[in-house]
Amino acid sequence: MKFIHTADWHLGKLVHGVYMTGDQRHFLHQFIDVVEEEKPDAVVIAGDLYDRSVPPTDAVELLNEILFKINVELNTPVVAIGGNHDSAERLSFGSSWYKQSKFYLSGKLVNDFRPIHINGVNFYLVPYAEPGMVRHLLDDDRVHSHDDAMKAIVNRIEEYLNPNEPNVLVGHAFVLGGATSDSERTLSVGGSGCVHSSSFDPFSYTALGHLHSPDAIKHDKIRYSGSLLKYSFSEAKQEKSISIIEMKENGEFDLRTRSLKPKKDLREIEGHLDELMDPAFYEKQNLDDYLKITLFDEGALLDPINKLRQVYPNVLHLERRIAVTDMKKKSSFLSMKEEKKSELDLFKQFYEQMTTSEFTEDKQQVMTDVIEKVLREEALK
Amino acid sequence: MKFIHTADWHLGKLVHGVYMTGDQRHFLHQFIDVVEEEKPDAVVIAGDLYDRSVPPTDAVELLNEILFKINVELNTPVVAIGGNHDSAERLSFGSSWYKQSKFYLSGKLVNDFRPIHINGVNFYLVPYAEPGMVRHLLDDDRVHSHDDAMKAIVNRIEEYLNPNEPNVLVGHAFVLGGATSDSERTLSVGGSGCVHSSSFDPFSYTALGHLHSPDAIKHDKIRYSGSLLKYSFSEAKQEKSISIIEMKENGEFDLRTRSLKPKKDLREIEGHLDELMDPAFYEKQNLDDYLKITLFDEGALLDPINKLRQVYPNVLHLERRIAVTDMKKKSSFLSMKEEKKSELDLFKQFYEQMTTSEFTEDKQQVMTDVIEKVLREEALK
Repeated sequence: MKFIHTADWHLGKLVHGVYMTGDQRHFLHQFIDVVEEEKPDAVVIAGDLYDRSVPPTDAVELLNEILFKINVELNTPVVAIGGNHDSAERLSFGSSWYKQSKFYLSGKLVNDFRPIHINGVNFYLVPYAEPGMVRHLLDDDRVHSHDDAMKAIVNRIEEYLNPNEPNVLVGHAFVLGGATSDSERTLSVGGSGCVHSSSFDPFSYTALGHLHSPDAIKHDKIRYSGSLLKYSFSEAKQEKSISIIEMKENGEFDLRTRSLKPKKDLREIEGHLDELMDPAFYEKQNLDDYLKITLFDEGALLDPINKLRQVYPNVLHLERRIAVTDMKKKSSFLSMKEEKKSELDLFKQFYEQMTTSEFTEDKQQVMTDVIEKVLREEALK
Repeated sequence: MKFIHTADWHLGKLVHGVYMTGDQRHFLHQFIDVVEEEKPDAVVIAGDLYDRSVPPTDAVELLNEILFKINVELNTPVVAIGGNHDSAERLSFGSSWYKQSKFYLSGKLVNDFRPIHINGVNFYLVPYAEPGMVRHLLDDDRVHSHDDAMKAIVNRIEEYLNPNEPNVLVGHAFVLGGATSDSERTLSVGGSGCVHSSSFDPFSYTALGHLHSPDAIKHDKIRYSGSLLKYSFSEAKQEKSISIIEMKENGEFDLRTRSLKPKKDLREIEGHLDELMDPAFYEKQNLDDYLKITLFDEGALLDPINKLRQVYPNVLHLERRIAVTDMKKKSSFLSMKEEKKSELDLFKQFYEQMTTSEFTEDKQQVMTDVIEKVLREEALK
């Protein structure tokens, strides 16, 4: 029995103010080609189909189009769960209809842990849920952390589990030891949000979503497929792929990966401005890629971003690196500043991540006024 | 062939700061009982399933639950379109799957005007769309108004129309001569938004949504079903109902209506405070109803709303009526004030309609500051 494991599509994602929907569409059409070639018995999507609980309408249309092609036109069963970026309730709409055509969508955790059987393999669907929600759902007061929650859920699953058949858990969690990047949203404010990998011992394979690298965890039977695309520069060096699992009757499996080519890669380049603007340097590159550029030049530069954009239209982020001799002093200063980011900086960062527009001086002024007002009021309390 | 015509469910609606979802659930369960009794060949919902493009999650869950019961459990075909309150794209998600079980959902107008055939009747689905969208979709530069748009759409429909069979148009529009209430959102800012009833001449029956009264238009073959519940006090005296149409092969039909009982009615009472607080007056009433109360008392009253709420817990709106002798002077003063409502008043009204919380003095002060700042900046321009 063969299935494809993917996750973290994050449809509707904004990266440094740029909507990724066009890139996601391009990539997913290649994904459909792979499904057509591989003819798997199922496609498993382990959460974060959307990037936010209310995704942009073109992301909604894209998901509809892609899933319809895979499920109905290519007649492939689909197993999908909600992640921490999805709205459990909104994603769940219609799922009772979908299962008639073997599209098994579990947006919201419910108190029914029976598996989905597909060609001899049992899939247990565990969409992302807050520990408090799991405590309530299972009526189990001992559930306080994500780890407690997963243990309690797996306990329930074990009532239905036939150890003589291949069993696959599909989950969206931060498994202890996994390597994070900048584009996953922290699961827990205070407390670790971690789940111990031992929870998954009863399963032949655990198909995870949440961490964006396919190498996020080293484990024989637990795997993150990784995200669809690179969604932050901390992922620039990751090799994104789709996992293809061929499950045997005894629960052992073979794993292959396939890599697809994004329309525009997301990568980092660095050097002096003159070097980067030299045709000898840039001629062999895909100039449309999304870039983070680090400049080594010292001293003032006149409008470097616009100069660079004449050659590299999709520069998303520009940094300057301070010469090695000064670095020690300055970098400790910088990291202190980073820790003590002002409210205004935090808001600016948030604003630029969430919108496509610039955080202009006008806007900065409005926000400064609001912050000052609140701080004044706090001080008076 | 028998079908039920309903529209304007507005799931997730807030009326004077109160979420109607509980009342809507109660009412829709009665609706399901009617479907079970009547065993129609189809249920037609002519738009505004939700009250807004991003409805609250419990409204999403309610719609899912009700439609699943009607369509799958009671095995009844459902024909539904998007209205001006719905998000065309969000509502459309999944519709390709739904039609496998005869749930025909057209959230977004597409360039395909072929009918849905159900037991000998042809249904033409025309979801709400802006004229600009229709102009683009049909590639017809002559479309500028809603009237142009409907004419152009019906022209396309006529290519598929068999005049020897019963043909039903399902639409969401403001048909000329229809009577409005306070809870429909105006379709057009500038320009009338009206559609001439003559556009619907080719159809045996036109099942409309948008206006909230079942008596909104007097026409043999064009009908508004009216909204599910009363959604504003201007609808307090309307008799809400469900329309049941028995269509004959020759396109003639019989129409019946059925009225359901809401959990809490929405109505107006008036009198002097003492009268309204007299058990002899209120004993025979359903005290849980949503009320608009008009007091005739002159002079100061000490906290009348809280006094009234001890008897009538769901007073949503309180007014005082000025004595007849002063009325002329004061009322012209009041209506002038109404026209020249301050920015603050307009915002207060908006805030109270959109949230469940009070517009406290603190909030008022914040808003006053913002308005003053903007006005100052405007003056400097």
